[in-house]
Amino acid sequence: MSVYPKAVHINEEGPREGFQIEKGPISTARKIELIDSLSKTGLKQIQTVSFMPAKNVPGMADADEVVKGFTRFPGVTYTGLWLNEKGLQRAIATNKLDVKGMLSLCASEKFLLRNQKRTLKENLAAQHSIVKMYQENNIPVVRAGLMAAFGCNFEGDIAIAHVLDTLQQMLDIGEQYRLDLQLISLADTMAWATPLSIKRVVGAVRNKFPDLQISLHLHDTRGMGIANACAGLEMGVAFYDAAVAGLGGCPFAAHSGAAGNVCTEDLVFMCHEMGIETGIDLEALIESARLAEDIVGHPLPGSVMQGGSLAKLRRKIAAAA
Amino acid sequence: MSVYPKAVHINEEGPREGFQIEKGPISTARKIELIDSLSKTGLKQIQTVSFMPAKNVPGMADADEVVKGFTRFPGVTYTGLWLNEKGLQRAIATNKLDVKGMLSLCASEKFLLRNQKRTLKENLAAQHSIVKMYQENNIPVVRAGLMAAFGCNFEGDIAIAHVLDTLQQMLDIGEQYRLDLQLISLADTMAWATPLSIKRVVGAVRNKFPDLQISLHLHDTRGMGIANACAGLEMGVAFYDAAVAGLGGCPFAAHSGAAGNVCTEDLVFMCHEMGIETGIDLEALIESARLAEDIVGHPLPGSVMQGGSLAKLRRKIAAAA
Repeated sequence: MSVYPKAVHINEEGPREGFQIEKGPISTARKIELIDSLSKTGLKQIQTVSFMPAKNVPGMADADEVVKGFTRFPGVTYTGLWLNEKGLQRAIATNKLDVKGMLSLCASEKFLLRNQKRTLKENLAAQHSIVKMYQENNIPVVRAGLMAAFGCNFEGDIAIAHVLDTLQQMLDIGEQYRLDLQLISLADTMAWATPLSIKRVVGAVRNKFPDLQISLHLHDTRGMGIANACAGLEMGVAFYDAAVAGLGGCPFAAHSGAAGNVCTEDLVFMCHEMGIETGIDLEALIESARLAEDIVGHPLPGSVMQGGSLAKLRRKIAAAA
Repeated sequence: MSVYPKAVHINEEGPREGFQIEKGPISTARKIELIDSLSKTGLKQIQTVSFMPAKNVPGMADADEVVKGFTRFPGVTYTGLWLNEKGLQRAIATNKLDVKGMLSLCASEKFLLRNQKRTLKENLAAQHSIVKMYQENNIPVVRAGLMAAFGCNFEGDIAIAHVLDTLQQMLDIGEQYRLDLQLISLADTMAWATPLSIKRVVGAVRNKFPDLQISLHLHDTRGMGIANACAGLEMGVAFYDAAVAGLGGCPFAAHSGAAGNVCTEDLVFMCHEMGIETGIDLEALIESARLAEDIVGHPLPGSVMQGGSLAKLRRKIAAAA
């Protein structure tokens, strides 16, 4: 069979994903409450906010206050998201976040043109300016992401050869600027991946770049999130982005495409049941998921927070015996 | 890697699963409308109703009228569910259903005691009476099911050796009565399975009984449904029970455990995207799923009916090029 990783590292993106997309308004205090709850679950990395202009993302208008308000837990990395220097400066000014740089390429030109009004070539050139921006601010660039690695709503299927070429461009930039790129994220930005394509793409990437540490960013829009994560596990992938309760998705968005990330506690449940460590207390995480549901005020897509863990059932059965 | 089956056969259980559990009331005409819609999708087998006492399952009080009302499509097998001779006689009296017999064993004694007030031994003995009942009615017994094959809320984990022993008892009955058991269904009745346990159990069953045709009955209570189906595909399993739109589950049942079957159109989507034939028109099935949602009057758990198929996106992209 396959070789699961012994342990999996989860980058929790729920607060940022969720509060960015929820209509709200959600009070700053409740956002802080969720982050503090997540801090106590054993998660090692939490993306707390994004620094976007309030007119574009009203749910993140209070990002600076959220960061000011939460309590840092020892051993947890707290990150933020930004798309330009202004956002980066806000992140640095918090004097509290773990500010690390990231390169971002995209496998689909049509998606780039639509979303960032850039060609592939222009986006590649922009990465040089981005690296310089980080280096001028003494921020290490440790992570790189490839968007639309498994398919694109505007371009269709993406050739694996093109994915490999784009990763090579990324590594070339890394080498040119002597970056310590520790993790390459393959993002299924528009939910085109299936377990088979996860295995094909990850296999090809491992084949060409055996030393790369791969991370998967998966969306559950077509119900493949957990199956795709499982395919990643079977390929030995040990790093996943996920969102508690499936925050960022919405089961009410009938027919419009609920676009949530893979659900953290469902992923943790699967890992634990298959003997893979996460360092996370699943029961505590389920409590955080229920808190998230209470905060947004409507059901969220997570399943295990409804069905309950098996570990809890096993304890109940043992106690009754 | 693994060997997917070339084609998959899906037993659609949505009408029976869904209308049995929905609070309703749902009119007979609308139940018939869903079955007629499903008949046009390319599905080859549809479980239409169950014949239970109306006082136990009010949603199935009109089972006979539903069967009377739908239109049989050539090439489609229409089945019903019953738990005793009275139910069987109602099914036979419809003179319209494809009435086939089934053995039913269970891997968990505690579940049996709780749900049917029988020990394992008593249930085994009961199967002899059941076979005789079928034989007296000239009904072939072609299928056998094993409940709680992957774990039990009251007994906990189930040893694989016990699963194999129980299957052996089933086959012994088959031999004793010269039954033509064509398919053995392994049911994850209480949603304990993970992709790893699916592979372990199916592998062990294949190892001991290489000639058995295995079917999987999967619940999505803990979000593992599609990942478990994928694990089945990787083990070459070609038969699945599923429910359109995830009927039978309920995204509103917060914290109480939504217990839906794996969603048919999400499963079909995964199969098609991985090159596995189903004979089903996914777009037509998505229309049926939306119809199901309209009929029950609340969102259902299916994802692809929200996110849309990739085949449709590919056609749109090709047309725009």
